[in-house]
Amino acid sequence: MKRIFEVNPWTVTSHDLNPEDKRIQESMTSLGNEYMGMRGMFEEVYSGDTHQGIYIGGVWFPDKTRVGWWKNGYPLYFGKAINALNFVKADITVDGQQVDLAKNMVNDFEISLDMQKGILIRTFTVFGVKFVVTRLISAATKELADLHYSFSSVDGQTHQITFDASIDADVVNEDSNYDEQFWQVLDADNSENGSFIATQTISNDFGVPQFTVVARQAFVGGELIHQQKNEWEVTDRYTIQVPTDGTVTFEKRVIVTTSRDYNSLIETIEAGEHLLDDVMIHSYGDIYQAHTQEWAKRWEKADVQINGDDAAQQGIRFNLFQLFSTYYGNDPRLNIGPKGFTGEKYGGATYWDTEAFAIPVYLGVADPKVTRSLLQYRFDQLDGAFHNAKEQGLAGALYPMVTFDGIESHNEWEITFEEIHRNSTIAYAIYNYTNITGDRSWLEGDGAQVLYNIARFWADRVHYSARKGQYMIHGVTGPNEYENNVNNNFYTNWMAQWVLKYALENYDQINADEKEKLAITTDELAHWQDIVDKMYLPQADVQINGETKHIFEAHDTFLDKELIPVSELDPAVRPINQHWSWDHILRSPYIKQSDTLHAMFYFPDAFTEEEKRNNFEFYEPLTVHESSLSPSVHSILAAELKLEDKAVEMYERAARLDLDNYNNDTADGLHITAMTGSWLAIVQGFAGMRVRDGKLHLAPFLPKKWTSYAFRLVFRGHVLEVQVTKDITTVELISGDPIVIDLDGSDLALQ
Amino acid sequence: MKRIFEVNPWTVTSHDLNPEDKRIQESMTSLGNEYMGMRGMFEEVYSGDTHQGIYIGGVWFPDKTRVGWWKNGYPLYFGKAINALNFVKADITVDGQQVDLAKNMVNDFEISLDMQKGILIRTFTVFGVKFVVTRLISAATKELADLHYSFSSVDGQTHQITFDASIDADVVNEDSNYDEQFWQVLDADNSENGSFIATQTISNDFGVPQFTVVARQAFVGGELIHQQKNEWEVTDRYTIQVPTDGTVTFEKRVIVTTSRDYNSLIETIEAGEHLLDDVMIHSYGDIYQAHTQEWAKRWEKADVQINGDDAAQQGIRFNLFQLFSTYYGNDPRLNIGPKGFTGEKYGGATYWDTEAFAIPVYLGVADPKVTRSLLQYRFDQLDGAFHNAKEQGLAGALYPMVTFDGIESHNEWEITFEEIHRNSTIAYAIYNYTNITGDRSWLEGDGAQVLYNIARFWADRVHYSARKGQYMIHGVTGPNEYENNVNNNFYTNWMAQWVLKYALENYDQINADEKEKLAITTDELAHWQDIVDKMYLPQADVQINGETKHIFEAHDTFLDKELIPVSELDPAVRPINQHWSWDHILRSPYIKQSDTLHAMFYFPDAFTEEEKRNNFEFYEPLTVHESSLSPSVHSILAAELKLEDKAVEMYERAARLDLDNYNNDTADGLHITAMTGSWLAIVQGFAGMRVRDGKLHLAPFLPKKWTSYAFRLVFRGHVLEVQVTKDITTVELISGDPIVIDLDGSDLALQ
Repeated sequence: MKRIFEVNPWTVTSHDLNPEDKRIQESMTSLGNEYMGMRGMFEEVYSGDTHQGIYIGGVWFPDKTRVGWWKNGYPLYFGKAINALNFVKADITVDGQQVDLAKNMVNDFEISLDMQKGILIRTFTVFGVKFVVTRLISAATKELADLHYSFSSVDGQTHQITFDASIDADVVNEDSNYDEQFWQVLDADNSENGSFIATQTISNDFGVPQFTVVARQAFVGGELIHQQKNEWEVTDRYTIQVPTDGTVTFEKRVIVTTSRDYNSLIETIEAGEHLLDDVMIHSYGDIYQAHTQEWAKRWEKADVQINGDDAAQQGIRFNLFQLFSTYYGNDPRLNIGPKGFTGEKYGGATYWDTEAFAIPVYLGVADPKVTRSLLQYRFDQLDGAFHNAKEQGLAGALYPMVTFDGIESHNEWEITFEEIHRNSTIAYAIYNYTNITGDRSWLEGDGAQVLYNIARFWADRVHYSARKGQYMIHGVTGPNEYENNVNNNFYTNWMAQWVLKYALENYDQINADEKEKLAITTDELAHWQDIVDKMYLPQADVQINGETKHIFEAHDTFLDKELIPVSELDPAVRPINQHWSWDHILRSPYIKQSDTLHAMFYFPDAFTEEEKRNNFEFYEPLTVHESSLSPSVHSILAAELKLEDKAVEMYERAARLDLDNYNNDTADGLHITAMTGSWLAIVQGFAGMRVRDGKLHLAPFLPKKWTSYAFRLVFRGHVLEVQVTKDITTVELISGDPIVIDLDGSDLALQ
Repeated sequence: MKRIFEVNPWTVTSHDLNPEDKRIQESMTSLGNEYMGMRGMFEEVYSGDTHQGIYIGGVWFPDKTRVGWWKNGYPLYFGKAINALNFVKADITVDGQQVDLAKNMVNDFEISLDMQKGILIRTFTVFGVKFVVTRLISAATKELADLHYSFSSVDGQTHQITFDASIDADVVNEDSNYDEQFWQVLDADNSENGSFIATQTISNDFGVPQFTVVARQAFVGGELIHQQKNEWEVTDRYTIQVPTDGTVTFEKRVIVTTSRDYNSLIETIEAGEHLLDDVMIHSYGDIYQAHTQEWAKRWEKADVQINGDDAAQQGIRFNLFQLFSTYYGNDPRLNIGPKGFTGEKYGGATYWDTEAFAIPVYLGVADPKVTRSLLQYRFDQLDGAFHNAKEQGLAGALYPMVTFDGIESHNEWEITFEEIHRNSTIAYAIYNYTNITGDRSWLEGDGAQVLYNIARFWADRVHYSARKGQYMIHGVTGPNEYENNVNNNFYTNWMAQWVLKYALENYDQINADEKEKLAITTDELAHWQDIVDKMYLPQADVQINGETKHIFEAHDTFLDKELIPVSELDPAVRPINQHWSWDHILRSPYIKQSDTLHAMFYFPDAFTEEEKRNNFEFYEPLTVHESSLSPSVHSILAAELKLEDKAVEMYERAARLDLDNYNNDTADGLHITAMTGSWLAIVQGFAGMRVRDGKLHLAPFLPKKWTSYAFRLVFRGHVLEVQVTKDITTVELISGDPIVIDLDGSDLALQ
């Protein structure tokens, strides 16, 4: 745990200029607008350790991956949302002295992310000049990034600033498997009103499209004195005179266009030119306001207020801020990389995190169309899912563990081939959307192709064990990735059974043309029913605190392990994934994230309270929570079981995962999808939000540390505000028609 | 299956110059002398597809390996015996026309490996000249390679040959993970009596020593007209006049010295010079005779004669020839790469194949010191084995899956971390040596450090299952690599139990100073005994042909699989490792090689005939034999169970694996260690050879196809010749004192 940012309800502020914390600072101050995003690196020269990263949504590259040995069916590449041209690069001098905060004597350094407005402000004084740098990636005009500088003299003297503003295409990925440069420059030029560079990903052998990205810059203020271009870079040099008193400003505006939106190179270049022309008509005030207004609208639907615990307050806002920066449902071709635009790890690709953690949040804080975009994304990639299933010799659709286009692009067999539980979560998202919004049109329309082909996959993937007389699923990795290639993982089996059950239940109602496309036979349906009836779900009696209790067994033979609780582990070996070899972890009883419990998180009403309690009491003490996805699930279940301290402990871990660098990896980027769990912990956990038969249920409690909390909730065309204090819960209808909800077991009419 | 070589008892001959078969030809005509070896590539320019390879025993390089994702504890490199300088390279012209058998009109091409003499002879006619090229890697002078050319005119005209004889250091490994050049040149020069080049492996980050290899050439015949050197190569140009009739000869001799035998570069260079001077005093006849005499001595101890089946005869000789070419026990720092000097795959490193398959053969066909060298090799690498165990958080010694120096150098977790059964085989080799030779000095001396530290590893690696009240081993991969990360693999558990039992049985007798070094406590011994007493060995009743039979279960839950025999598999999906994705293989019931049966191969007397029969009948029908190590084990067990047809079928597959390219991979190199299984199939299988309480037992039968077979056997200072015909087995004492053996259950006195 390391906290370099100060606790404040609406900002994330640091005065730390320690080079060792630079990467954490950069991750934490990332900005994004779904279309593109960047780490909070400094624009100007920084000679210390830094991880520069600018990423464009949906612009990716198949990085070759190679090992000495290869298993049949491994994908040949690992898809990555790659580091794109650096359009903020600058070389700044004050009176001829280069600004480099790793070397200069710097005073009054502050970097502050304003989450309410979506802007990053950096102030510092160097060589007698105070800099205030305001950065935004526009939430109003997706292609626009704006850097606003104000300079003022602090020593009563005038100063001359030279500002070499560049767009640099010579960028690489730190994690490039062959130190390969993924980019080539197609065109570049300087012009009166700025300069541009057009880049393209290099060709590849895997049929992945080459993406063109064009960035064009223009300026307000200063005096243009020189322009140049070289093989990889275009630069405009400005000078700015800083008067003895008062402030002078200088502004750089950048427009980024890509081949994802335009058909040809020339179109992409020209579109950028026109967009920049349009932007240059406007004042900085206009740009600033258009952007901050969008953020205000988002917070209006989504804000969560916590009184009495500023750290908790900051945590939930930071998490929502980063989630919305990564994705806000504007482009159904995009999805939510687990690290968003904040780092290279996980390659910016799509994981099951989206359906497991992000969709449940969007369903509560945003218009249903955001979720619909994410459902559409999977429908559009159905061909890839057919391909993946076929690669494994199986029928139906298998959604990938890691992807940009539907084709699996990760290559550890224990993940890609075996962590197939992800497939059920794609179906769960359809259920979740349908249940919460009440809109059945997706399930009965396009969504049916997704659901029923997933069902087909499961029906082929199970096998019948003659010895046990039941259907089984051998050779899987569950959400608990600290087990590999296990048999009959409870979660996987249970979810597969659920998928088939849900598919059967809804079959009659799906649209006729969807049925025709699916061509499911009566025999197939009967076989599905047989699997539902005879699915093997491992379970056993165990001793918990001296009492015999019945639990589900995480997988066959889990209970044969040496079951020593985490509390008895030497703290020096934690986290175990940094101290133990892989085999040691695998044969240990320690759980990375809830597995058996995950089903209870998805379907709280499908399990009795006793089942939830027994399994929680058995598995949580064996759980090391080394997945960023783990704490929130446990918080929600603990809340349901009235284990308030555990619920709050787990909430804090989820909410401040990156703010406090819990897993010691925030330098690599933020845990965007995991962060969403903190909202779920508050709303589904503390406030007990459920939707049953179309009715909203709430059963809130107030964590002891807090004096009150409040959140807004989007539900079937209504926006509600729920306020929870020690004594009373109030629910207010902010917009929408009158509605009856269930509060603590009683009807409450809102109008 | 593809047979491009003709069947002949003592030679492997081909007239095939088809470019598509070139790599197979090169693998099959490899030569070696333990110190070095090479593929059967042509010396002169060959513009078709070719895989050139010359390897020096013990000269290796840690090739960096990298994947997108990394598990804790993975080795950072994959050790490889790397392709070394090409000292046979030539550019030959006849009357100014370049010899290139991929392009020329060639007549009467033949390439023939003479296994009795250990030489490779290639003849062909091109541009009016008949070439006869005789190649040998001397079995008498380890550093010496000799190429002897004879040229004769076939068109009654004189011809002028120019012969550019080079040593080329610019060689790469085809499987280099980063297309990296592993070599640098340290020195090179031309001199009156030939030229030399000194190379060194490039530096590495893993603490692996850099090896220096020097090659120096000299010539007999021809006229030296030019010498040159460039960055990577030295060349001597000779001309040879071919008269209208008669034959003219030209000979190249090469001496290879390495830093493995000398302390400095200069010493290594000078030693090569002196060795070459010594060699140049001798005639070709001397060199040839010294070499072939060594091979004659080997065959005198080891030859196996099969009458009535030339294919079987050729198979066993080819296998012994290649084994002896790879290793003959001269250097305890060396071991037996699974592909010897015949290819890059498996990197020329040491695997458990040595102890499982090669030692049992050497114990029967060579002086015990050959085996003793191999035992010494493991003792010398004990520090590496301690390191490997420690990496996994475990006590004692864990011998690596793949190594040159004792440190694990492979990086698939399911192999390195989990295929730990290999450790027991290192102990088994000590038992095997002790049992067959009767020499207890190794076991009671240095060998004790190996055995007892392996025992320690097992005692720490098992865990106690409170639920079952037994000791278990979770998370392993057995010899059947078509299962990964299974629990309680019968073979692994049984062998671990055996190791502990064997260690306990012999503890009192080991040398006092070994005991002192080991410092085993009474508690430790008691714990080992407890494990022996309570080891869990999975077993169950199954139905075989309608009868209930008791078998050992390959591992927990194996019997829950869908058990469809191999015979019902679509032949189009065979071999499954080329058609199915890895997960599909893992969850299938198909067995790559015997696993449960492997214990019965090691310890035939530890299981009842019923146990052997039941398990064979159950598992063999599920076995695809896609490991080259599989058929011989099954042949031996089938022979024991009097399943003659199966025994012979499996023998043929083992014996002619490469001759008939059964696994369609001979192009990559030969299966040196697997080949040894064919000898075991004849001697332990057909002839029923066992050693019980120091007494040799034989119980031979004659395969129906054969008219007779005979083999020599080294046993405790005796050499026996066993001859088996349809009616009678005769055993002759070739050398040594009188001895009583058991033949078919009765004593037989030999004198």
